Amino acid sequence: MTVKAYGAHAADKPLEALYIFRRAPGDHDVQIEIAYCGVCHSDLHTVRGEWAGTLYPCVPGHEIVGRVSAVGAHVSRFKEGDLVGVGCMVDSCQACAACDEGLEQYCEGTGMVGTYNGPTPDAPGHTLGGYSQRIVVNDKFVVKVSHPEDQLAAVAPLLCAGITTWSPLRHWNAGPGKKVGVVGIGGLGHMGVKLARALGAEVVAFTTSENKREDAKALGAHQVVVSRNADEMKAHRGSFDLIINTVAASHDLDAYTSLLRRDGSLVLVGVPEHNHPSPQFASLIFRRKSIAGSMIGGIAETQEMLDFCAEHGIVADIEMIPIQQIEDAYARMTRSDVKYRFVIDSASLATT
Amino acid sequence: MTVKAYGAHAADKPLEALYIFRRAPGDHDVQIEIAYCGVCHSDLHTVRGEWAGTLYPCVPGHEIVGRVSAVGAHVSRFKEGDLVGVGCMVDSCQACAACDEGLEQYCEGTGMVGTYNGPTPDAPGHTLGGYSQRIVVNDKFVVKVSHPEDQLAAVAPLLCAGITTWSPLRHWNAGPGKKVGVVGIGGLGHMGVKLARALGAEVVAFTTSENKREDAKALGAHQVVVSRNADEMKAHRGSFDLIINTVAASHDLDAYTSLLRRDGSLVLVGVPEHNHPSPQFASLIFRRKSIAGSMIGGIAETQEMLDFCAEHGIVADIEMIPIQQIEDAYARMTRSDVKYRFVIDSASLATT
Repeated sequence: MTVKAYGAHAADKPLEALYIFRRAPGDHDVQIEIAYCGVCHSDLHTVRGEWAGTLYPCVPGHEIVGRVSAVGAHVSRFKEGDLVGVGCMVDSCQACAACDEGLEQYCEGTGMVGTYNGPTPDAPGHTLGGYSQRIVVNDKFVVKVSHPEDQLAAVAPLLCAGITTWSPLRHWNAGPGKKVGVVGIGGLGHMGVKLARALGAEVVAFTTSENKREDAKALGAHQVVVSRNADEMKAHRGSFDLIINTVAASHDLDAYTSLLRRDGSLVLVGVPEHNHPSPQFASLIFRRKSIAGSMIGGIAETQEMLDFCAEHGIVADIEMIPIQQIEDAYARMTRSDVKYRFVIDSASLATT
Repeated sequence: MTVKAYGAHAADKPLEALYIFRRAPGDHDVQIEIAYCGVCHSDLHTVRGEWAGTLYPCVPGHEIVGRVSAVGAHVSRFKEGDLVGVGCMVDSCQACAACDEGLEQYCEGTGMVGTYNGPTPDAPGHTLGGYSQRIVVNDKFVVKVSHPEDQLAAVAPLLCAGITTWSPLRHWNAGPGKKVGVVGIGGLGHMGVKLARALGAEVVAFTTSENKREDAKALGAHQVVVSRNADEMKAHRGSFDLIINTVAASHDLDAYTSLLRRDGSLVLVGVPEHNHPSPQFASLIFRRKSIAGSMIGGIAETQEMLDFCAEHGIVADIEMIPIQQIEDAYARMTRSDVKYRFVIDSASLATT
């Protein structure tokens, strides 16, 4: 089966309409008609070849929501018509300790198979993502969406931006009585603020932009700190249990470790293209602080997060685009000119 | 009361015999006749003014063991004749959250009061340490020693080197089924190996010295890795739950974070004089690893560690010296020529 998609044939080529192959659903597969797909920074990095190893043609997209159109013989959890999501992974070894613990993103066997640019026996030999009309995915990597259907587009970014902040918030026990910071109010950060607030934590948003101050409050932050303002930063010294840092650009981590209380953790979720300067390790020693990293989240916790969001009425703040505007969207995303996530209306693929 | 001690009048002066003042025991004080005092790198850094803020005269020493010679009216836990120890702290605010949790080393009120070079109303206005015949300490900062008396000298280093490795081993749950690394086989590291082994962990010692290989095994390491050997290091990639890094000299932390498994922690206990180069933070993200710090340990956990050591027959490996050889000992310690801790026989102070 071929379906319409949007992708690039080379790092220096713009995205364009193309046809891609999707396998017929096997016994354990779920076939999904994609309704919406969020636009993640990783899409841009990958399709432009900014990270090593991009395979072409490259069809990005790993914030996928849609409706089930067929299921394999051994699939019992899903049926035709179900609203579902697919995030950053479509497979893993399902046999290692990490997979056993529901942490497929850290799979120690084959490694996780990315929703795009991962290995697959399907043509053309690497996975093709959600900038397409349809996708076929092993049922273990499909999650149920229980939000109302009219929120479906705004659910899409939960599949990457949502889970990437949810997983560390949960792992490091964000909740009542905890003070949580979220650094960078973009696609990931705006979800981090919403989720941390809904989990019951005291939430402080950190932004470099004075003009995001009111927005961040509207997202749910109890307080907003403009990180360029030394006095504002200083007022929070030694007070945070957890700071989720979504900023991938190289920056001074001491500015944030100094805000942690004893036993506090600074958790990085953005992979820096150029490494951060070295933090003062002595300051970690003097208060038993940690700097850690966290990558997306497992399938079980993705389902947990979606259910939590449905229950609490949480979705992303999005700007919908037809696929034909993807290059403009990338340009605007690069200059942080989006509140807070572009989502592709997949119906627009039909007109390519 | 004046007692004999050994200390320096300036950073560039050698240590020499001097008389110091000790207060009469107050209602909550324990007066201790010091039998032995371990020699810690911090003693040298402080007395030579290598860290900022040394006050002179400086009498170092915070690995103190001895016998109680008097107690205040409100002291019930100790009596004359008891074998006791005093470590790195002699006071704290005893009112903050850290003190309430038994983590006085992280006191958020006054801050912990160091056994030497800390603030005190006693003359000369700063605390004077264990290179002396007697010390008077608030009973909350005195711990019981239940080792046989003939092991007393070798107990002294437990009060700093022991607790500094014990605290992170316990906090990060070293024990059966866990693989624990100890980097640097010196005063701290040799205790780390002994304690991790006794806690039931699989223990790997890391040393730069081929000639410490057999020694480290004798200390209890299941395996020893000479860290300059890339193949030996590589064989342990992705396998450690916890690595306690005792090396204070600036070095490549990636060599050790790469050996951690998912959710593993590299815990620094040596304050680097020159900061370590920046680690690859991306590698933390890809396996949810942490780099953390830890500083000595609280009083309750110091008592726990001493009791555990008495029960398991654990003491430090020491080389006893009279106080008159302290300058030689410092010179040898600086070139790591000690297995593994110098301990001062405090009886030698009588002959100064």
